[in-house]
Amino acid sequence: MKTDKGTLFVFSGPSGTGKGTILGEYFKKYNDNKLRYSVSATTRSPRVGETDGINYYFVSQDKFKAMIDSDELLEWARFCDNYYGTPKKQIMDMLSDGIDVILEIETVGAMKIKAKIPEAVMIFVLPPSLSELKSRLTSRGTESADVIKKRTDEAVREIEQSVKYDYIIINDKIEEAVEDFRTIVNSQRLKTNNNKNTISEVLKK
Amino acid sequence: MKTDKGTLFVFSGPSGTGKGTILGEYFKKYNDNKLRYSVSATTRSPRVGETDGINYYFVSQDKFKAMIDSDELLEWARFCDNYYGTPKKQIMDMLSDGIDVILEIETVGAMKIKAKIPEAVMIFVLPPSLSELKSRLTSRGTESADVIKKRTDEAVREIEQSVKYDYIIINDKIEEAVEDFRTIVNSQRLKTNNNKNTISEVLKK
Repeated sequence: MKTDKGTLFVFSGPSGTGKGTILGEYFKKYNDNKLRYSVSATTRSPRVGETDGINYYFVSQDKFKAMIDSDELLEWARFCDNYYGTPKKQIMDMLSDGIDVILEIETVGAMKIKAKIPEAVMIFVLPPSLSELKSRLTSRGTESADVIKKRTDEAVREIEQSVKYDYIIINDKIEEAVEDFRTIVNSQRLKTNNNKNTISEVLKK
Repeated sequence: MKTDKGTLFVFSGPSGTGKGTILGEYFKKYNDNKLRYSVSATTRSPRVGETDGINYYFVSQDKFKAMIDSDELLEWARFCDNYYGTPKKQIMDMLSDGIDVILEIETVGAMKIKAKIPEAVMIFVLPPSLSELKSRLTSRGTESADVIKKRTDEAVREIEQSVKYDYIIINDKIEEAVEDFRTIVNSQRLKTNNNKNTISEVLKK
């Protein structure tokens, strides 16, 4: 049977909402082989514990600029003298193999992706409240009051973008947020557009 | 907190695919008070065990025609000298109260509903294969070969309409079909459009 195309999930939400935890717990609990991470490219140096090809593709500035010039990136941006970008080929290959792809990215990059791949499914993770998010950022204990204020302001700006997304997950209890994520992923697998070949098969048999 | 509007689910599939069983098992297992049946109106006589207002609203021909004239029906059709129709007010009232509504209906009526309520979520139940459907219809043992042939032809015509639906459930194993149904219902509850008030609340707190 011919495989239907995979779905690209774009996953955003302010710093401190637990996006990484939701995905980590989901993969641990459900061992979903039909869903894979998109790995970004960056020019920044690897941190301790980070592996090339898993956390990021670590590339030189020259290599990154060559990737931009040859249109190998779906989107890219520059933060603090470092470049970050989303390689196109790996995503397109997985999707055409029927694999779903999850791409964690901030809202500006997310909108660039949506413009290029309109059928991408956009998921936004919300904290239960702004005050809860602020207390989560504070309890990390690693940031100054200034940094926390800056992050909270940034969170408000990001949350205002959430109306442009398809789905909202409120990360109040992590187990429920994982189930919500699973519901969204599985619902896409039931979409008629992702089952055109299945319908033909039913009619053939 | 202001309630967001409910979702209308339109539920179709050929005779013998187990639509009623899926819904029955879903309500038994999950006791979902946020989802209610839409009750149709009909001019046919109640059968043994059927209750007015639960299985159907049983009305006279005159009453039914008056409902048509005063635009009280979202859609209606005539089969074998009897009229069947979908009352508008009960559905609209539940939706604006934030209640989700499920409406079981054949494909022609379903498309009329979609035309009037474009945000309706369309779900189609497929048998695992046509031969399986035929054997299910045969094993009921109550129908002649002629009737089974007619139903199978009708099933093919209905399945061809399934591409116009949003979601496909293949009823191979009933427990999986119930989970698929639940996934679709819950995913709608995570849609940004159904959570506009929630987003405002998060930003307010």
